[in-house]
Amino acid sequence: MSTPGTLTSERILEAAEETLRRFGPAKTTVVDVARALGVSHGSVYRHFPTKADLRDAVVDRWLRRMHPALAAVADGAGSAPERLRLLLWTLAETKWTRAQDDPEFFAAFAELADEARTPVVAHVDFVVAQLTKVITEGVARGEIASDDPAATARALFDATGRFHHPSARSEWVRPRIDASFEGVWTLLRNGLLPRGSS
Amino acid sequence: MSTPGTLTSERILEAAEETLRRFGPAKTTVVDVARALGVSHGSVYRHFPTKADLRDAVVDRWLRRMHPALAAVADGAGSAPERLRLLLWTLAETKWTRAQDDPEFFAAFAELADEARTPVVAHVDFVVAQLTKVITEGVARGEIASDDPAATARALFDATGRFHHPSARSEWVRPRIDASFEGVWTLLRNGLLPRGSS
Repeated sequence: MSTPGTLTSERILEAAEETLRRFGPAKTTVVDVARALGVSHGSVYRHFPTKADLRDAVVDRWLRRMHPALAAVADGAGSAPERLRLLLWTLAETKWTRAQDDPEFFAAFAELADEARTPVVAHVDFVVAQLTKVITEGVARGEIASDDPAATARALFDATGRFHHPSARSEWVRPRIDASFEGVWTLLRNGLLPRGSS
Repeated sequence: MSTPGTLTSERILEAAEETLRRFGPAKTTVVDVARALGVSHGSVYRHFPTKADLRDAVVDRWLRRMHPALAAVADGAGSAPERLRLLLWTLAETKWTRAQDDPEFFAAFAELADEARTPVVAHVDFVVAQLTKVITEGVARGEIASDDPAATARALFDATGRFHHPSARSEWVRPRIDASFEGVWTLLRNGLLPRGSS
C-alpha cells in the first residue's frame, strides 16, 4: 500500500488509462484502478469522488494533450486559410494515429467521451476559439470573408466532424480518409475566401 | 406453419425489423425471426441463406425507402444550390425524425449498418449520384463552380456526415442540430457558388 501522499491524481489517471485499455469502460471499476495501484478504493475516491469524476478526468487529460499543438498552429506563421487547414488536419490526424496505434484505448476513450459532456464541451470550445482567432485575423487581412467568425469557426468544426469525431472512427481508413479530407477542405476553403479572390 | 408460398422476402424483412426493434441486433437470431412468423428457420434461410444476407437486406430496405424522395428533389424545380440544400436536408431530417420517433429501431439499424457494407455503399453511391446530377446541371447553368462534379458531390456528402451518418445520432438534438446544419450549409454554399457571384 502506498501512503496517500504518493498517490497523485496524475498517477491515478495513468492507471485508469491502462485499466480501461485492458478491460474496456463497461468492465472497469474504481476498485480495478485502485488494485492496479496497490491502494484502497477509498484512496482513489479521495481524488475522484465519483466514477463520473474519474471518467471525465481521463477524457479531459487526453483531450488537453492535443491543445499545445493546436495553439501553436493557430499562433504560427502562414496565411489564415493555411493555418485553418493545418489546425483541422492536426485535430484529425492526431486522432487517426491514436485510433490506429492503440485501438483498444481509443475505443474505450470514444465510449467514455460520449458520456463525458463537460470535458468534451470544453475541448470543442477550445478548438472553436482557436479557429475563431485565425478567422478573425484572416478577415482583418482580407484573406477570409466572414460576418461572424465564431459562427464560421463552429461551421468549420461541424463540417469536419467525420475527420475528428471519435464516433466516426470506423471511417478512418487511410489513404481514403486523407482524400476525403482534401475534398472537403477544398470546398470549405472556397467558402471561406472573399468573393472575387481564387 | 404457413406454406412456403405465402412467405415472401418482404414479410420476412418486416418481421426482422420488428424483432430487431424488440431484442436488438446482438440478441436477434434467424430463429427469432422465424418464430415471429410461425415458420421454420429453414424457410427463412431459403430466402436469406446467411444471417449476413438478412442483415444486409434489412439495411438495404430501410435505406432504399428514402430514395424516391431524394430523386424527386434532385429532379425537381429550383436553382441547383437550392436543390442541393434540400437534398442534404431531406437525407438528414428523415434520419433525425426516425431516430427520435423510433430510437430502438434506429439504434439497431445503426449497429447493423456499421457491418452492412454492400447496401451502405450502394446507398452512398445513390445519394452522391443525385448530388452529382444537380451539380452538373448547376455548372451548365452557371449557378455552381466545379471542375469535377462527382468529387464536389462526394465532398458535400462527407462535409455533412454529422447530419446524416447514423454514428453521429447522439448529436441530433433539436433545434441545435438545425442551427448547425444552417451554419455548415452557408459555408458549403459559398464554396459552391462561382467566384464573383454572391
